[in-house]
Amino acid sequence: MGKGGEGSGDGAKVEEENMAAWLVSVNTLKIQPFRLPSLGPYDVRVRMKAVGICGSDVHYLKTLRCAHFVVKEPMVIGHECAGVIEEVGSDVESLVVGDRVALEPGISCWRCKYCKGGRYNLCPDMKFFATPPVHGSLANQVVHPADLCFKLPENVSLEEGAMCEPLSVGIHACRRANVGSETNVLIMGAGPIGLVTMLAARAFGAPRIIIVDVDGYRLSVAKSLGADDVVKVSTNNQDMDEDVVQIQKAMGSDIDVSFDCAGFSKTMSTALNATRAGGKVCLVGMGHNEMTVPLTPAAAREVDVVGIFRYKETWPLCIEFLRSGKIDVKPLITHRFGFSQEEVVEAFEVSARGGDAIKVMFNL
Amino acid sequence: MGKGGEGSGDGAKVEEENMAAWLVSVNTLKIQPFRLPSLGPYDVRVRMKAVGICGSDVHYLKTLRCAHFVVKEPMVIGHECAGVIEEVGSDVESLVVGDRVALEPGISCWRCKYCKGGRYNLCPDMKFFATPPVHGSLANQVVHPADLCFKLPENVSLEEGAMCEPLSVGIHACRRANVGSETNVLIMGAGPIGLVTMLAARAFGAPRIIIVDVDGYRLSVAKSLGADDVVKVSTNNQDMDEDVVQIQKAMGSDIDVSFDCAGFSKTMSTALNATRAGGKVCLVGMGHNEMTVPLTPAAAREVDVVGIFRYKETWPLCIEFLRSGKIDVKPLITHRFGFSQEEVVEAFEVSARGGDAIKVMFNL
Amino acid sequence: MGKGGEGSGDGAKVEEENMAAWLVSVNTLKIQPFRLPSLGPYDVRVRMKAVGICGSDVHYLKTLRCAHFVVKEPMVIGHECAGVIEEVGSDVESLVVGDRVALEPGISCWRCKYCKGGRYNLCPDMKFFATPPVHGSLANQVVHPADLCFKLPENVSLEEGAMCEPLSVGIHACRRANVGSETNVLIMGAGPIGLVTMLAARAFGAPRIIIVDVDGYRLSVAKSLGADDVVKVSTNNQDMDEDVVQIQKAMGSDIDVSFDCAGFSKTMSTALNATRAGGKVCLVGMGHNEMTVPLTPAAAREVDVVGIFRYKETWPLCIEFLRSGKIDVKPLITHRFGFSQEEVVEAFEVSARGGDAIKVMFNL
Amino acid sequence: MGKGGEGSGDGAKVEEENMAAWLVSVNTLKIQPFRLPSLGPYDVRVRMKAVGICGSDVHYLKTLRCAHFVVKEPMVIGHECAGVIEEVGSDVESLVVGDRVALEPGISCWRCKYCKGGRYNLCPDMKFFATPPVHGSLANQVVHPADLCFKLPENVSLEEGAMCEPLSVGIHACRRANVGSETNVLIMGAGPIGLVTMLAARAFGAPRIIIVDVDGYRLSVAKSLGADDVVKVSTNNQDMDEDVVQIQKAMGSDIDVSFDCAGFSKTMSTALNATRAGGKVCLVGMGHNEMTVPLTPAAAREVDVVGIFRYKETWPLCIEFLRSGKIDVKPLITHRFGFSQEEVVEAFEVSARGGDAIKVMFNL
Repeated sequence: MGKGGEGSGDGAKVEEENMAAWLVSVNTLKIQPFRLPSLGPYDVRVRMKAVGICGSDVHYLKTLRCAHFVVKEPMVIGHECAGVIEEVGSDVESLVVGDRVALEPGISCWRCKYCKGGRYNLCPDMKFFATPPVHGSLANQVVHPADLCFKLPENVSLEEGAMCEPLSVGIHACRRANVGSETNVLIMGAGPIGLVTMLAARAFGAPRIIIVDVDGYRLSVAKSLGADDVVKVSTNNQDMDEDVVQIQKAMGSDIDVSFDCAGFSKTMSTALNATRAGGKVCLVGMGHNEMTVPLTPAAAREVDVVGIFRYKETWPLCIEFLRSGKIDVKPLITHRFGFSQEEVVEAFEVSARGGDAIKVMFNL
Repeated sequence: MGKGGEGSGDGAKVEEENMAAWLVSVNTLKIQPFRLPSLGPYDVRVRMKAVGICGSDVHYLKTLRCAHFVVKEPMVIGHECAGVIEEVGSDVESLVVGDRVALEPGISCWRCKYCKGGRYNLCPDMKFFATPPVHGSLANQVVHPADLCFKLPENVSLEEGAMCEPLSVGIHACRRANVGSETNVLIMGAGPIGLVTMLAARAFGAPRIIIVDVDGYRLSVAKSLGADDVVKVSTNNQDMDEDVVQIQKAMGSDIDVSFDCAGFSKTMSTALNATRAGGKVCLVGMGHNEMTVPLTPAAAREVDVVGIFRYKETWPLCIEFLRSGKIDVKPLITHRFGFSQEEVVEAFEVSARGGDAIKVMFNL
Repeated sequence: MGKGGEGSGDGAKVEEENMAAWLVSVNTLKIQPFRLPSLGPYDVRVRMKAVGICGSDVHYLKTLRCAHFVVKEPMVIGHECAGVIEEVGSDVESLVVGDRVALEPGISCWRCKYCKGGRYNLCPDMKFFATPPVHGSLANQVVHPADLCFKLPENVSLEEGAMCEPLSVGIHACRRANVGSETNVLIMGAGPIGLVTMLAARAFGAPRIIIVDVDGYRLSVAKSLGADDVVKVSTNNQDMDEDVVQIQKAMGSDIDVSFDCAGFSKTMSTALNATRAGGKVCLVGMGHNEMTVPLTPAAAREVDVVGIFRYKETWPLCIEFLRSGKIDVKPLITHRFGFSQEEVVEAFEVSARGGDAIKVMFNL
Repeated sequence: MGKGGEGSGDGAKVEEENMAAWLVSVNTLKIQPFRLPSLGPYDVRVRMKAVGICGSDVHYLKTLRCAHFVVKEPMVIGHECAGVIEEVGSDVESLVVGDRVALEPGISCWRCKYCKGGRYNLCPDMKFFATPPVHGSLANQVVHPADLCFKLPENVSLEEGAMCEPLSVGIHACRRANVGSETNVLIMGAGPIGLVTMLAARAFGAPRIIIVDVDGYRLSVAKSLGADDVVKVSTNNQDMDEDVVQIQKAMGSDIDVSFDCAGFSKTMSTALNATRAGGKVCLVGMGHNEMTVPLTPAAAREVDVVGIFRYKETWPLCIEFLRSGKIDVKPLITHRFGFSQEEVVEAFEVSARGGDAIKVMFNL
């Protein structure tokens, strides 16, 4: 990093170089210097302490793309993060040096109709950590707007702070599906997204949550994290009617909201068929782009389908849920690595393998 | 009619027999006597004056089924209707003999959670005209709850009253999609349902409405009834991307809400792709049960999919729109028939043929 | 059962006489025979087991009126109740003899626009236990519609079942104010209604609840039942600005929703001034009809004022909250009485005195 | 002013001096030079062409304050305005020099929870034209963010563009009260705000609008602008019950939403009593701070009270209503003045007198 950051003008001090994990080509990550942008009046400079690996990070590493985004130039990876404030811009009043903060990764334009209308996650000009061509946050330090850095209470760790990002997906999904104290919830898929959605639904008050997967180990994790019941299914389309019967039996009452956290034709069809008339299905997972689903009979029972794109205004609630203990994300952090070239490579391999890895976390 | 009805005890009068159009087997309608149920304290007896033919009536005639409903016993057909009150139950205060009324066809249970929660159209115990095993209203007289009979103002005809039923589908669709003065609307399909949805969207204040079909004649009708612009497309899936470009160009701004009034994979896919982020697609038509659609990218733009089942609380608004002239349904009534055996058969043939027939109406 | 109910004609059985507590004149309650209406096909006959005394019952006893309702003829009192099914009507499928049930006291018309639109509590033709001229439920037996009798799970007692009625007021208030996991709540007044509102807000997920009263004992009860903090205020209008400062300090963050469970000019003014811009004040208490309040500055901060009338669709949620332990109403039941003439009189005296009496309950 | 905005250093050209109307002390306006701020990358420089006088401008002139805002330093006045783009910032893509635009006057922070949550009008750091210490727009030129300047279509004049500001108050009020095609509307007060609220309610589809005032002339104006009926009342509290009867009779059906555009105890009480159960009263006028009103009986009929603070996201809809002819604001512009010292003084006198002056407009 250059002077641009601290500008302390302390010529006597040898300046530390800011290092970051760069995605330089397919399957190749390299720790290299990353020059920070200058600090604006409403920005802060944050020393990263905890950064998690997301499925999209792995996807970028393997394919250089995710959805319609394509990595064309080397890009710093990482977007689930928390750290400590090292410098604040001249007009920042909400934070001081030394504050421990979780970072919301997306900077929206605040000029478009989505930003003005309270749906800034849909902003077409969003600048988001590690979504090309914007650099990410797996780095010693980053510069970020202060209003996207949320102070952590004493009883919430920096690792938990980094977990606000994946948890936000579950929170946003629950908000879009309007989960509350009267909502019985079905979750298709017990991967990391299914699990955070389950934790969020519980925190929003869902009285009964059933989770479904093809993998017995993942279901056992879901059970241990609080699912009321689990149902193991196959990937065979022929079994769908029977699956629905088993799922509804496990619920024991109407299924008000279903989350498809897998995103395949079969999981979505199961969700559509299992949900009560007037209920909602929220599509969270992104398995298949195109799906073959019984949409007409679902529509004719006024089962609404809602989707999500990232999240908005979720950090304060995540932190409140962590602070109050309504959500405990610590069991999701299954693997930890340091920030060396070797460990970065290994950490991504562990995350990519799946298996018993739910969340892989860097401690910087 | 039997005693049950008037109970006037006027033995001198030769009693008129109540005749109705019975669906007795595939493709066979017969006008036969229809014994009215007795008049409850909150019921009225209505002399039918105008009854329209709905697509579902034709479907029952040809196949004895519609969606999951199956005709197992001979059933009186018809459910789009209006007439004149001939007798009122002992506790009816809202209507008097001679009132001209439009009839809402469905009687819900008022004991289930859907009825209590304001979504009575989803009541699992609904008794609905001409949905087996409940008899319909193409008859000289019917007995119906007074609260489902809505008085027509002087400037609204009985035929217009009968049109409240198909119009209600459009009204309910617009309400579910929250159409208003700021909603630019795309309609896929210019058949009868597309047209009533267009009229409803206009009445709800939609500033710009584009309608799409494969049939040039139907589009010319839509244009004459008020579409701002029309786009002719093919049924070829390969053309979809180009269709979306043409449709968005015809709109000239964001498409906020799309109604798929056809209900095929291609129309639904087009609607999902053409609608702006954060918009809504309402599935109204019922072409295919299962659809292959790009649901994931739509979900990832938070394009919600909502469906409809019939309607609820629509008659007062329909009547207000007709009274004020915000909606004119008269041009939709293209053919009229009397209530004889021959005319009933012919009327259903005309309706089934489609072509220039939009709404076929009986005058009884 | 005899005459009143079934007409079963079992002449061999000696008929038990159904007794009820009649409000016969000001301050005079008498236990006298109460002839049951006949059992309709959708009705059940319930043997009452637990009946609580409500403030409105006491008000009727002392003044023969409540709001605009006036007792003109002797009337059976009581409306917070639970019991055991003794007989079911011919079309009842949801309940069987022996089921333990809590009763929702109001029967609405299901023909008006409020009933059809999901706000049946506003039905102008509501027939409500112990609201003249409709008889109440402090009786050995009552006949009631089956769909207003809600089966209790094994771990919920009949007394808790009777508490669903007052609890429903808190539930409905929280729903109208949209209380959830992100809503910091202020409650003005720690009487019975303030307490049930507090319990409901907690069950809906409110992270922080501050309760305010003039009485230290009531505040200590509120604290023991779960308030995060309490603030003792005076009735002196001059202290209001200082009260607001103390209340906001006790909250420590924005007050999103305030409930005025007292209903006086000072409590309402305090609530309006203390609530954040864009928040809500829900007026629950009915102390004064006319209030002098700073409505304009509140409106100019878009603080909305919502009110409640009884409740709707609350019993299933109350029972779920009791079943799951999210709400414990047992500590609210401070006094218990049997159903003799002497005990009825004494119970109402205890309830009227207030003091340490929160809920006075009859065990029949 | 020179090409570049300020400091362009084009010494050859004699720079035009930017003049503005300064509020320098009570009742004293002076046209004096007003140095423009530098043009940011997302700003535009606009030559003002039409500026209207608002009641708050007059209030500031007479008292140097409005609500809790106090003028402590000389301040340029004016905030209802439209003009022509003369220069665009380096990153502006939505506008070009020569575009005719209407200006939304408030610049919010986009960092607080109100801005992020879609209620930017409640931003505590709002910088708003002519709200101290921020300068207004009655000037030859202003610099303003491009995203708050909305291009006018050809058929909408600059004067109509300036009217978007007062019209926005009516639009925002209608949105907050959820006025639509099924909402019968009562408006208390036929002053400028009552009139724009009436026009907005009509554009949102209100089928019937009744307007009430103490002044027959204003009522005749309201009638000519489209009120369905008018009711003349007194300021005497004793007449309120009779007023309510007259108003409800004039409506002829339920009053769903009432707007109090006066803001006095009597107008608000009348609105609360006249509105149907479950309806809404929106407090728009700001006559009295403290009101004595029958809030409890209104709350017990679930009549909600909502307020407004300015507006948000209203300009595109205003312009659409003007473009389509759903609203015609031209009849509201009753007086026009040029931008000389004498005319500015006279224009404010005319506006302050009221009488037949609805909107007084400057043509610069």
